Amino acid sequence: MKQPLIIDVHGHYTTAPKALEEWRNKQIANLKTPELGPKVSELKISDDELRESIEANQLRLMKQRGSDLTIFSPRASFMAHHIGDFNTSATWAGICNELCHRVSQLFPDHFIGAAMLPQSPGVDVATCIPELEKCVKEYGFVGINLNPDPSGGHWTSPPLSDRYWYPIYEKMVEHEIPAMIHVSTSCNACFHTTGAHYLNADTTAFMQCLTSDLFKDFPTLKFLIPHGGGAVPYHWGRFRGLAQEMKKPLLTEHLLNNIYFDTCVYHQPGIDLLTHVIPVDNILFASEMIGAVRGIDPETGHYYDDTKRYIEAAGRLSEQDRFKIYEGNARKVFPRLDKALQQKGQ
Amino acid sequence: MKQPLIIDVHGHYTTAPKALEEWRNKQIANLKTPELGPKVSELKISDDELRESIEANQLRLMKQRGSDLTIFSPRASFMAHHIGDFNTSATWAGICNELCHRVSQLFPDHFIGAAMLPQSPGVDVATCIPELEKCVKEYGFVGINLNPDPSGGHWTSPPLSDRYWYPIYEKMVEHEIPAMIHVSTSCNACFHTTGAHYLNADTTAFMQCLTSDLFKDFPTLKFLIPHGGGAVPYHWGRFRGLAQEMKKPLLTEHLLNNIYFDTCVYHQPGIDLLTHVIPVDNILFASEMIGAVRGIDPETGHYYDDTKRYIEAAGRLSEQDRFKIYEGNARKVFPRLDKALQQKGQ
Repeated sequence: MKQPLIIDVHGHYTTAPKALEEWRNKQIANLKTPELGPKVSELKISDDELRESIEANQLRLMKQRGSDLTIFSPRASFMAHHIGDFNTSATWAGICNELCHRVSQLFPDHFIGAAMLPQSPGVDVATCIPELEKCVKEYGFVGINLNPDPSGGHWTSPPLSDRYWYPIYEKMVEHEIPAMIHVSTSCNACFHTTGAHYLNADTTAFMQCLTSDLFKDFPTLKFLIPHGGGAVPYHWGRFRGLAQEMKKPLLTEHLLNNIYFDTCVYHQPGIDLLTHVIPVDNILFASEMIGAVRGIDPETGHYYDDTKRYIEAAGRLSEQDRFKIYEGNARKVFPRLDKALQQKGQ
Repeated sequence: MKQPLIIDVHGHYTTAPKALEEWRNKQIANLKTPELGPKVSELKISDDELRESIEANQLRLMKQRGSDLTIFSPRASFMAHHIGDFNTSATWAGICNELCHRVSQLFPDHFIGAAMLPQSPGVDVATCIPELEKCVKEYGFVGINLNPDPSGGHWTSPPLSDRYWYPIYEKMVEHEIPAMIHVSTSCNACFHTTGAHYLNADTTAFMQCLTSDLFKDFPTLKFLIPHGGGAVPYHWGRFRGLAQEMKKPLLTEHLLNNIYFDTCVYHQPGIDLLTHVIPVDNILFASEMIGAVRGIDPETGHYYDDTKRYIEAAGRLSEQDRFKIYEGNARKVFPRLDKALQQKGQ
């Protein structure tokens, strides 16, 4: 059997040159006086700086760990859609997406883009469509990150099943792009960003889909739930039982033609559970490297987020299963990625 | 080896006679005109009605499944601390706790109480102490349920590590009672109560403890995190890694002298993961029966919430381990339960 292409569907540009953060800090300082800048043109990052930030970090680790291609989006915790208004988010999303695009141009074999959207709490999501379409049509991006809680931990938007979100879904279906459902930094003191808010959002999003008939309205809509699906696989029996009480179809039928889980679960027992409970057709390889958990696990001597090791060691998986997790499912969920690879003869 | 006593540490009075709900509905209807009633004395539930509501439900299933004793508290989703003000909650908590007390008097071998508190968003938690002490001293209750989010899904209270909560912790330590960290119904449309809010709260509470040094201030404080710890065991590597980044001690040392998990995980792979990842000394048997998931799993032919079956089938557990999960750990975490059992020669 042909060696699979190892596609990591969940990488963020967490290592962007410092100038990006400095620009953002100025933007935040002038939220009420945007005329004082900074202008987009004031941000100057050279190709060499981009190259260096990637070669020394993500690309180095990809080579070490043996992954080939990363679906690369702006840093999730920096999206911070709760800051400022739509214009704040629009400018910021434009900058961050362009940087990911430039990375994908500099390293076309190793990175392909996914867009952050210029969401802003309470604002019509149709306002995100121009940025979405620019990223798809001009940058060749293959997916988006959709934030179900642009308020940053106050959960003031309607559930994902609400028609509020439908303008985005219509565009996703039209352009054949999936959404990774990914929140950003928490500004609610109750929720630690990467230790609570991220995982809670994953569970919440899944349950919003479960209680609704969203995928009857959008039979080809695809959501990728990151961080191994939050609490969902661990509580798969609870979710099956709740769906049963609500007279919903079996979850395989009700949700699993539309919902996929990544493998950002940072220990072997977690991956073993994920691959036991969730059908292999619904699992996509990912590490979120370089992300929230950067250290080396003293129990194994390897990086916590070196999730490929766990997939390799997961005893239940056949070679065919691993092919799906590494490559096949990503091509299915991200049809534009598949086309881009085919155009390169891959 | 002696057969363990099977102690279920997580049961709610979800089957109380209809009159209770009717009384509550009247209370809610008159929130702004409490002088219109209802009075506490208007609620009339006979011992026979209580007996029937238990014998036909919880006790019947306990006998069927082979569990002996349930730590029994008012229905979690009905606590609804967000409704009304402190007086609303105080009256309601008083009624609900008294009913659990009466159940424990009617079936002293099978039920022992844990208290709901009259929490109210934004109100000093010291106001809960009289009800807490009444339940401990007069009713012989052995634990409390502490709601980390009395707002019902808006998360407006400070994290559990905040000094806001300390008056409760001081009383818990003084009276040697643990708290189960349990939210109530969600009034935020984003969060399904039992499919998202409960699990999110479990994860959130754990992370609030992880990022803090709460247990340095209260070395003997004990928290029971229900629903198998939310997402925590599934993401144990993430939590170990996050603690490491924050230069916290190993989780075993930092949290596991104070934090315990119950076994309300409704499928075998979840219990297998829990018992693999979390030290057996930190796992307490529970089912939350009769609770959120009442059906029969078509994959097994047994009730989803018949968690004893999963513990029995968990291959990693020795007889000694099962003794701890069923009885030993409950006696350790609930010292007043242990004393009550000893007084009965158990």
